[in-house]
Amino acid sequence: MRILHTADWHIGKKLHGYDLLDDQRAIIDQIIKIALDQQVDAIVVAGDLYDRSVPAVEAVKLLNEKIATINLDHKLPLLAISGNHDSPIRLETGKQWFIGTQFHLATSIADSLQPVTIADTQFFLLPYFEPIEARLYFDEPITTIAQGVARVIDEMKPLLDPTKKHVLVTHFFAAGSSQTDSETKIQVGGLDSVPLDVFAPFDRVLLGHLHSKHALHHPTIKYSGAPLKYSLSEWQDEKGVYVIDTSADSCTFISLTPKRDLFALAASFAELTDPAFYLPLDRNAFWHFTLTDRAIIPNMMNQLRKIYPTILAVERLDGPIREKKQLTLKENDPQTLIQTFFHEMTGEQLMDAQQQWIDQGLSEVLTTEKRVEP
Amino acid sequence: MRILHTADWHIGKKLHGYDLLDDQRAIIDQIIKIALDQQVDAIVVAGDLYDRSVPAVEAVKLLNEKIATINLDHKLPLLAISGNHDSPIRLETGKQWFIGTQFHLATSIADSLQPVTIADTQFFLLPYFEPIEARLYFDEPITTIAQGVARVIDEMKPLLDPTKKHVLVTHFFAAGSSQTDSETKIQVGGLDSVPLDVFAPFDRVLLGHLHSKHALHHPTIKYSGAPLKYSLSEWQDEKGVYVIDTSADSCTFISLTPKRDLFALAASFAELTDPAFYLPLDRNAFWHFTLTDRAIIPNMMNQLRKIYPTILAVERLDGPIREKKQLTLKENDPQTLIQTFFHEMTGEQLMDAQQQWIDQGLSEVLTTEKRVEP
Repeated sequence: MRILHTADWHIGKKLHGYDLLDDQRAIIDQIIKIALDQQVDAIVVAGDLYDRSVPAVEAVKLLNEKIATINLDHKLPLLAISGNHDSPIRLETGKQWFIGTQFHLATSIADSLQPVTIADTQFFLLPYFEPIEARLYFDEPITTIAQGVARVIDEMKPLLDPTKKHVLVTHFFAAGSSQTDSETKIQVGGLDSVPLDVFAPFDRVLLGHLHSKHALHHPTIKYSGAPLKYSLSEWQDEKGVYVIDTSADSCTFISLTPKRDLFALAASFAELTDPAFYLPLDRNAFWHFTLTDRAIIPNMMNQLRKIYPTILAVERLDGPIREKKQLTLKENDPQTLIQTFFHEMTGEQLMDAQQQWIDQGLSEVLTTEKRVEP
Repeated sequence: MRILHTADWHIGKKLHGYDLLDDQRAIIDQIIKIALDQQVDAIVVAGDLYDRSVPAVEAVKLLNEKIATINLDHKLPLLAISGNHDSPIRLETGKQWFIGTQFHLATSIADSLQPVTIADTQFFLLPYFEPIEARLYFDEPITTIAQGVARVIDEMKPLLDPTKKHVLVTHFFAAGSSQTDSETKIQVGGLDSVPLDVFAPFDRVLLGHLHSKHALHHPTIKYSGAPLKYSLSEWQDEKGVYVIDTSADSCTFISLTPKRDLFALAASFAELTDPAFYLPLDRNAFWHFTLTDRAIIPNMMNQLRKIYPTILAVERLDGPIREKKQLTLKENDPQTLIQTFFHEMTGEQLMDAQQQWIDQGLSEVLTTEKRVEP
């Protein structure tokens, strides 16, 4: 059979404040198109369907629509698990009904021990879980994720049908992988790793959790990666899905093209604002700039945003030059303060006409209190 | 056919801070038992399944369990609509799959125009909506709920199958009804009423929204009321469900017995704390007391809670006697303040021994600052 492997949709995620729902809608539509073009027999989503345990209502609407398109309109079997970003209880609403149309949604250890057989393949769907859940489920002193996963897989072994291929779908940090920024907080929060050898009973392991397919290099244990670049650290990743053919024992990566890409670039402000430089660039993308300038650039963000509407952040390669001297109001009259500020911001001196306007304006402002209304 | 009519489950609701999930689980189990005993052909829940648009995860778990029990375990058709307390988008997750097992969940005006036929009856499921939704749906200048409901019902008329009975399930304030406290805020928020004559095309109208079956007296247009007493104003309500028989054209009210009832009582503190008075009472219930006393009763709530563990509130019939005189620290030394406080609280004077303990305590406290640690 042919399986499309994707993961970490993170529906509802915002990127530096930018709403990604349209990007996510477009990328899921592309995944569906690949599934149809590639004539797959099932789509696997290996966890983190949502970005948050309580997703925004618009995120709920999008996921509901897309699973209906996949499973009801196209009648494609859909196998999904909850990831560490999902609330198992919230996500599982309706799951007993979904089974009737081959939409298998696993949200608990118990679910993972009810393998799903489609054609020549037996799927074990193991959602993300905390050690406490395994401890309670097995009533054994399990304190780490590695112990928990090993214990669950032990429990799966007698269920393996020797006449079928065996695919494990799960959502953990598999040892040997390197983590991206998007998941760093999770790791700090206590997620430990699962050594690859516990996956030995399976012909293939379809992972979610790490957002880059490069996070792990193994012939049969793979992260599909997220379908979109969800952090700056992912900007050079090639995003896509795997299409696995169990008969040919092959696994092909198919790239996705985002509505808005994400790039990082180091350049000077003069370059970034020069049409000869920026016209060839994909200015519709999310951009992260590292400025090579050291001078203070007044109104920098507004100038850049006119050219690049979705800037994630601007950093300095060396940091801007800062004046050490602190000006205080006591030491300077308003005229001098304005002259100094103007020079700092522009590098120029005030023209005579500008100086006159300032003198006139200051004179009006400073005499206001003495005025008597007629 | 036989229909069980219930509404306003408000799963996840708290009553003066008390968690009601166990009460709600028990009452839904009772409703299911009635459905089975009465051999109904369908259960109708007329809106406000949840108490909040984003229910707590425990509330989601409870509703998911109970709808599975009704619809999957007992294979009972289930017809439900979203109420003003529900989020239509969040609630509707899975609804396209639910239809396969005769679980019809309507969350939009569009849904209400797809009648559901079961046996001899055609059901129109019209969820709560805001006027803006009708305005957008029909692209007509609808500004009130009354106009909106009338317009939707006009649209239903050509869909009425003359060979069937016609039942409307909906969730509005139907004119002529009186509101209970639980829904007062909604009314203030702009909910207007629907005149009863717009319901003329239907043989029966099964309403949710108002929590008392006494809110409307009409032979065929009825509120089932909430299954539990959700506010003090409901304490004298008889809570239950209707069982409707379309062949016999009958409608029978069947009472529910809550795990914890709710009572209001006016009595003196002496009575309330007298075993002869309280032993015959259902002290496991939620209690609202109106004290007939006027004297200040020290430590009153703690004393009452030892006897009645779930007190909603204690009010005074006439308010306690309050001293008008304001004591200020400047005018009185600590000894005098304590004497006055003791007298106010107990009506007694300090005994000599008590006065000595106070003097000694104060002396120790007031000299603390001068102490030098060895």
